[in-house]
Amino acid sequence: MIITREGVRVSDRRAVRGTVAEGFEAVREEFAAVVAGERPDYAAQVAAYVHGRKVVDLWAGPDTDGETLYGVYSSTKGAAHLLVALLVQDGTLDLDRRVAHWWPEFAAGGKGAVTLRDLLTHRAGVVGVDGGFSPEELADDRAMAGRLAGQRPYWRPGAGFGYHAYVIAALTGEVVFRATGRTLHELYEERIRAPHALDFFLGLPQEHEPRFRPVQPMDPTPEQRAELAAAEVPDAPGTLPSIAYNRNGERPTDIESLPNDRLVRAKGPASFGGVASARGLAGMYAAAVTGLEGREPLLEAGTVAEIGQLHSVGYDLVGRDHSSFVLGFQDSTYRYPFLGSGSFGHGGAGGSQAFADPRAGLAYGFTRRRYAFPGGAAPENVRLVRAVHSAALASAP
Amino acid sequence: MIITREGVRVSDRRAVRGTVAEGFEAVREEFAAVVAGERPDYAAQVAAYVHGRKVVDLWAGPDTDGETLYGVYSSTKGAAHLLVALLVQDGTLDLDRRVAHWWPEFAAGGKGAVTLRDLLTHRAGVVGVDGGFSPEELADDRAMAGRLAGQRPYWRPGAGFGYHAYVIAALTGEVVFRATGRTLHELYEERIRAPHALDFFLGLPQEHEPRFRPVQPMDPTPEQRAELAAAEVPDAPGTLPSIAYNRNGERPTDIESLPNDRLVRAKGPASFGGVASARGLAGMYAAAVTGLEGREPLLEAGTVAEIGQLHSVGYDLVGRDHSSFVLGFQDSTYRYPFLGSGSFGHGGAGGSQAFADPRAGLAYGFTRRRYAFPGGAAPENVRLVRAVHSAALASAP
Amino acid sequence: MIITREGVRVSDRRAVRGTVAEGFEAVREEFAAVVAGERPDYAAQVAAYVHGRKVVDLWAGPDTDGETLYGVYSSTKGAAHLLVALLVQDGTLDLDRRVAHWWPEFAAGGKGAVTLRDLLTHRAGVVGVDGGFSPEELADDRAMAGRLAGQRPYWRPGAGFGYHAYVIAALTGEVVFRATGRTLHELYEERIRAPHALDFFLGLPQEHEPRFRPVQPMDPTPEQRAELAAAEVPDAPGTLPSIAYNRNGERPTDIESLPNDRLVRAKGPASFGGVASARGLAGMYAAAVTGLEGREPLLEAGTVAEIGQLHSVGYDLVGRDHSSFVLGFQDSTYRYPFLGSGSFGHGGAGGSQAFADPRAGLAYGFTRRRYAFPGGAAPENVRLVRAVHSAALASAP
Repeated sequence: MIITREGVRVSDRRAVRGTVAEGFEAVREEFAAVVAGERPDYAAQVAAYVHGRKVVDLWAGPDTDGETLYGVYSSTKGAAHLLVALLVQDGTLDLDRRVAHWWPEFAAGGKGAVTLRDLLTHRAGVVGVDGGFSPEELADDRAMAGRLAGQRPYWRPGAGFGYHAYVIAALTGEVVFRATGRTLHELYEERIRAPHALDFFLGLPQEHEPRFRPVQPMDPTPEQRAELAAAEVPDAPGTLPSIAYNRNGERPTDIESLPNDRLVRAKGPASFGGVASARGLAGMYAAAVTGLEGREPLLEAGTVAEIGQLHSVGYDLVGRDHSSFVLGFQDSTYRYPFLGSGSFGHGGAGGSQAFADPRAGLAYGFTRRRYAFPGGAAPENVRLVRAVHSAALASAP
Repeated sequence: MIITREGVRVSDRRAVRGTVAEGFEAVREEFAAVVAGERPDYAAQVAAYVHGRKVVDLWAGPDTDGETLYGVYSSTKGAAHLLVALLVQDGTLDLDRRVAHWWPEFAAGGKGAVTLRDLLTHRAGVVGVDGGFSPEELADDRAMAGRLAGQRPYWRPGAGFGYHAYVIAALTGEVVFRATGRTLHELYEERIRAPHALDFFLGLPQEHEPRFRPVQPMDPTPEQRAELAAAEVPDAPGTLPSIAYNRNGERPTDIESLPNDRLVRAKGPASFGGVASARGLAGMYAAAVTGLEGREPLLEAGTVAEIGQLHSVGYDLVGRDHSSFVLGFQDSTYRYPFLGSGSFGHGGAGGSQAFADPRAGLAYGFTRRRYAFPGGAAPENVRLVRAVHSAALASAP
Repeated sequence: MIITREGVRVSDRRAVRGTVAEGFEAVREEFAAVVAGERPDYAAQVAAYVHGRKVVDLWAGPDTDGETLYGVYSSTKGAAHLLVALLVQDGTLDLDRRVAHWWPEFAAGGKGAVTLRDLLTHRAGVVGVDGGFSPEELADDRAMAGRLAGQRPYWRPGAGFGYHAYVIAALTGEVVFRATGRTLHELYEERIRAPHALDFFLGLPQEHEPRFRPVQPMDPTPEQRAELAAAEVPDAPGTLPSIAYNRNGERPTDIESLPNDRLVRAKGPASFGGVASARGLAGMYAAAVTGLEGREPLLEAGTVAEIGQLHSVGYDLVGRDHSSFVLGFQDSTYRYPFLGSGSFGHGGAGGSQAFADPRAGLAYGFTRRRYAFPGGAAPENVRLVRAVHSAALASAP
């Protein structure tokens, strides 16, 4: 038996596998402490790059290794909007142009003045559709876009912002398609994923299915169950959260099992349907900001800086609580306030987390198999991100 | 003695009179439980319509029946702004036109760019006037409008919003008058109240006075009294809340007795001076959204949808707390988060509440005689609205 | 031994020196009670004017009298922006003109549309610079301005506001210089300080140094120390608070000792480097709003009203909490909610506070020597301001 720095009893330190670079040993310690505090079947991965060099590549738990793939829910949005950022950098897309310029049908219902920047910052107000999406529509970004175009926004555009949980990248993806004739998925594969051989897929090819592990349902303690019940979005189909999470139709979506549907994985809806390993998540942000393993970064410094600017901060009309978005991404400093200004990324409902801290040259990825309490990026990320960030600052030349 | 589902001891179940439709029996139960928990002289009414059909029509307490009329304070704003919505639907008024277009004097003090939509969403910033209104002015919307026109706004227009408690419908009413040559009161009577024979008056005719019951003062418990003292708006005449509630003049307004003044009831200032029964309140929202008892609804679906869009959500500069407004109405989902997106209505200081949930085809009204602790729509509405809404969803075809 | 109204034991009532006008005796009592509750070396000053007449002029503590001068940190911004208000009143500056009109370099990094009003209300987004300022730059507003011009804002201009703690008056001061060819400091001295012989200096002349007392470091109790640690801005150089408080460079600023540097006092950076007595602080606001001792006020009523309008209220992107600004000043009603609407002023990190309540004809100033827990205007101001304000209202003719 071993006692860690935190005094946690660790029954099997060998539970943590993989490697860390010199100076990042504390991250392995912290991950081991996390594992020790979880149930025996806990399975997770954590990875990080500093200035493009892999410094953390760890995993733990049964039936898991560094190549295992998980459904990463909204961390998917990071892949989608990195592609959008490349097209903005190219000049193919203009952030301050009206969406209807590329996609005239979108002007319906009072959305004529909504810009691409508004879409990317959760300001358009079409977080779902009256009547809900069918499961087949939900798996198909273009089908969703078609219905969203005609929807009157749930708030007056300009009145604020709210998390477009299932649809933001169907909307931005439709702009990509209208502007380029190519899908966001194709362009992501071509310009980002394949060149870096990233294990972060928008649409999982059949040949990678053997590496995929289905999401396990949340298993809250009795205390956690009571907490969830108290905080619960009211179980009524007409509420704005119900619309945003597609619980307003005849076949309400069960979020926990969403990536377990092969149709979802195959089509990879760009707001929530991605499949990745922690290494793939971290690798993508490294490729974007610092370059991966010595290659040129995908994004220029000016693009990185613009992406990282705070855009929508305050009361989230869907989440009904405070939240904070930069351009197309979550403001990663909101959950991890010690990160550098301009950090950007996205976590996911099942527990995944991924971001870049450009000031520290850091890229981070985390996945886990079991849907985490209470939903959203898993709480153990707070400890892991702090350990990784501290080691990254200490390792600076 | 009878024990309800909630285990509340009910000394006299017959206290609740009136009728409910099949499927709405639980509302009668809930109302009985409310009555049982209140003091013996508690008097209140609750009414609801589903798709225009009356499904709840209940009352309780001494000296009260279904025709009894109460002062409904800010629930009055719902009548005023339903009339404004009709004029917008007609094309008589244009929401995004500047107020000064119809009312040039209003441009004074930096208000030239304020639109009708801004007025309706509590953004104009003239929540009162320096020096306060006399009681006679406060009873007379046009007199208030005359003074408000010259007032410099208390916040920079565009900086946010704040509840225009006593004046919002004096402002919008002046726009109605300038645009049509008729008062808001006349047009409301002609187009909304009289055709539906609604017991919801803007200006109570003398012949209905016998049905009116004066407001009884709040009678807080010692604990409630301490709570009120702790939360109290500082007793100083120059504060923004003092200005908004007309406590900044030589004759500060006593809100609790306001509807007990015959002058107020007779003139019916459109922000707070209405007199109604619960049936009248609910009936008006049914007439607006679903049609009353088989008639055509007053509002088209597009108008209903625009009214229900969130417009001003966040920190209220007058209330100094979070609040949420749709177009001309309160966002009813803010107090009752299980209601459908797009629900709109207005509660009142004495305890009244009224709204429509268009997704559920529901219209609701509530009144009570004694000024409710802690001010605003009475807390028992939470229980009653939930019971009515659940029954309405269960009754859907 | 003496027991005050509050039951506080006062070992030496003579500790409080100076004078109060008839009707303001309660302020002396309250100040004595404050002094009695503090440590023996507590040194502070409080002063107030009503309609330009000095009604409170008190001090206490070792090595202190009415002429003693302290570093007043951000209360300095009040002096800077009173000068800006004069130039706006003159027509020399136009609030809604773009900053780049006077200062073309400022347009860099996406700041081309930022107006002078945006600058004054903490909306520009350049709260510091990447890499930090050297101590020499921090003491020199024009050096800071030169670096800030090239900085990309940390939030998208328009997305919100955040406290520009060290730089706001370097930015507005550069506008003054570009528009007039004179420094803000020269014009303040010429138009405001010298004509009224105010003990409130932007740049302390050598001959006044003997009256200056260095800031003493905060001396928190163990409980306070724990509270500070819990609330602490994370100790990481890249965070937005670190950038705003210049802790992101090679020589991070230690705020507690900032005014103890003669270079800072000599140059008097207009956001934080002022030196004053309480009498000087209160006197300046009296000179501005009511006129000092029978003279004409510097500001016309319309200017006072515009300055006092709420402009930036809500979530502060730097403070990461709610805050409230009027035009170039803090909204003084936010800390003291009993003050009149339109009150404006500024407190400082070390504990100082100063404001005008135009509705009450009141001007207030407070200084103390030891850096106050927990930072910002010292908590004893709540008691003192209430006492002064109540007496002022009671003394009204």
